[in-house]
Amino acid sequence: MTQSPRIAIDAMGGDVGPEVMVAGAALSRAAFPEIRFTFFGDEARIRSELSKHKALARNVEIIHSDEVISGEAKPSQALRRSKDSSMGLAIAAVKAGEADAALSGGNTGALMAIAKVALRTMEGIDRPALSALMPTLGDNDVVMLDLGANTECDAENLVQFAVMGAAYARVVLDIERPRTALLNIGSEDEKGTGMLKDAAARLRAADTLPLDFTGFIEADRLSRGHVDVVATDGFSGNIAIKAVEGTARFVADLIRQAFTSSLRSKAGFMLSRPAAKLLKNTLDPNFHNGGVFLGLNGLVVKSHGGADANGVRNAIGVAAKMAIADITRKIASDLENFPKQAIEDAAE
Amino acid sequence: MTQSPRIAIDAMGGDVGPEVMVAGAALSRAAFPEIRFTFFGDEARIRSELSKHKALARNVEIIHSDEVISGEAKPSQALRRSKDSSMGLAIAAVKAGEADAALSGGNTGALMAIAKVALRTMEGIDRPALSALMPTLGDNDVVMLDLGANTECDAENLVQFAVMGAAYARVVLDIERPRTALLNIGSEDEKGTGMLKDAAARLRAADTLPLDFTGFIEADRLSRGHVDVVATDGFSGNIAIKAVEGTARFVADLIRQAFTSSLRSKAGFMLSRPAAKLLKNTLDPNFHNGGVFLGLNGLVVKSHGGADANGVRNAIGVAAKMAIADITRKIASDLENFPKQAIEDAAE
Repeated sequence: MTQSPRIAIDAMGGDVGPEVMVAGAALSRAAFPEIRFTFFGDEARIRSELSKHKALARNVEIIHSDEVISGEAKPSQALRRSKDSSMGLAIAAVKAGEADAALSGGNTGALMAIAKVALRTMEGIDRPALSALMPTLGDNDVVMLDLGANTECDAENLVQFAVMGAAYARVVLDIERPRTALLNIGSEDEKGTGMLKDAAARLRAADTLPLDFTGFIEADRLSRGHVDVVATDGFSGNIAIKAVEGTARFVADLIRQAFTSSLRSKAGFMLSRPAAKLLKNTLDPNFHNGGVFLGLNGLVVKSHGGADANGVRNAIGVAAKMAIADITRKIASDLENFPKQAIEDAAE
Repeated sequence: MTQSPRIAIDAMGGDVGPEVMVAGAALSRAAFPEIRFTFFGDEARIRSELSKHKALARNVEIIHSDEVISGEAKPSQALRRSKDSSMGLAIAAVKAGEADAALSGGNTGALMAIAKVALRTMEGIDRPALSALMPTLGDNDVVMLDLGANTECDAENLVQFAVMGAAYARVVLDIERPRTALLNIGSEDEKGTGMLKDAAARLRAADTLPLDFTGFIEADRLSRGHVDVVATDGFSGNIAIKAVEGTARFVADLIRQAFTSSLRSKAGFMLSRPAAKLLKNTLDPNFHNGGVFLGLNGLVVKSHGGADANGVRNAIGVAAKMAIADITRKIASDLENFPKQAIEDAAE
């Protein structure tokens, strides 16, 4: 366990690049004073941004790279260009043990492909999954995965996602037996695709798994706080999380319109400013930025491409917390100690 | 075109039954004074509810039925029991030309199966789709389909959903060439499943279709008002719409908490009551209740199982408006006149 996590940052990924990545790193120092950074990318641009954040000069390295993986690159193209790219170099630093986590705001498919080839999946896991924490009305956030790393999945992938998600919840949310559900279009056993019924049967049969399988959950119940982990294929998970984000933003826009539509409403809005601020924090996607790739022998965190400096700060916070908690080793030992036999039994 | 639409109501469907179905019908008289109802179900219970709504006594018929299709019934079971059920009888009334629309708050899969067998699909359409209007920040609502009638689809189904959705938008939103998109996990051409790429290629090639195909749309852009129609398979569509509904409710709950967390916030909330009311109307799922099955030779509207009397009123409003607009004939003639050749060309 480290108290001074070393974060390898792909400074070129995302819509903006070094400007927000460096600014986000500077902001993250408040919560993690011992954090150390290595920035990968255009040295001149990174240096110019660093000059605006004097406090960051300590414990910072720059590794120059000319190659940037574009947002449009296919995973196969990204893999070919990985070696000298800012994204590939950041992941290579994790592989070499020179960094505790890599962080990128770049192309998700490319990041996934490069990370999978460089770090390989944990024993017992066929495919890594992109996971994130979503806010709920309950006491805890909910862990959701996969959010888009695997467009098409089979029942065995879903079972593995459930087990990894539960291990993640155990570490992050400190819940011994996380309540774990599969995302479906109905809660009854006979609803959904064959893949989902198959995965549910395996999870139901595997009663030695260190999780409580609660069956299917519908997308309108995600935020209720009744489960700790929601496993789903990457297509449905991506649709669900983007629908949640888009609606939260839509509603926030409506609120702004509604509460400023008349003088009286405007006055009410001003009076409620502390409440409005709380609302903004909960609803701002930057506040929840930072998806973790689970199932790899190394920690890789995805920041939203459109994140601002606060968003990058929060994604760095996720990477730092996971590094301090030594999540990769904990998930690996979880997978090794308890459920392997149960997963195999359930898979039969 | 009728100005006195006749609505066949399955009084037994939904979580509550006759109480909300009759109360919703009574409320709908305000907007549609000439509307006529036939209620199918337990005559004694319906009569007892009607006695509470004297104004409704005019233009109301009751057809007794003992059989109710349960929420758990599989489509195959529902079909076997359809003949004497309140749901089956309501749809039979549409088939017989005795009603202009059937409305039920019951089991969606059962409703779809019974409607498909009784009314059959329009020529050129393989599968009906459940569609609904969703609010946006733009000038118009967006038509979205399929929302759960078809768990698994192929590219041809998606093309047909796009064509039907565009015809629906033409009638309901009065847009000559609706901007039509496919729901996907990225907006770039290479994103998503083979099915989606195939459907996109067909729609792109079919430039004589009376719609503007705008490519892929991600779930966080649904409410932006940039497209008029979003076509998707029933699994993804159901995940998306439920994630939208659940988040809207989640945020509404947060607002309530936030604006009543302190005296000052509470005062602000009270002052902004007109704005809060506007917000509630836009966010209340009852306000948007009423999904239309498109692609059938007859009009069938699904009300949410948990809808209250206001929700049922709104679903009846959708049924009445569609009946007055003669949507079924208009979509059929749209399909017949323009795009058939184009669809076939595109499908090749």
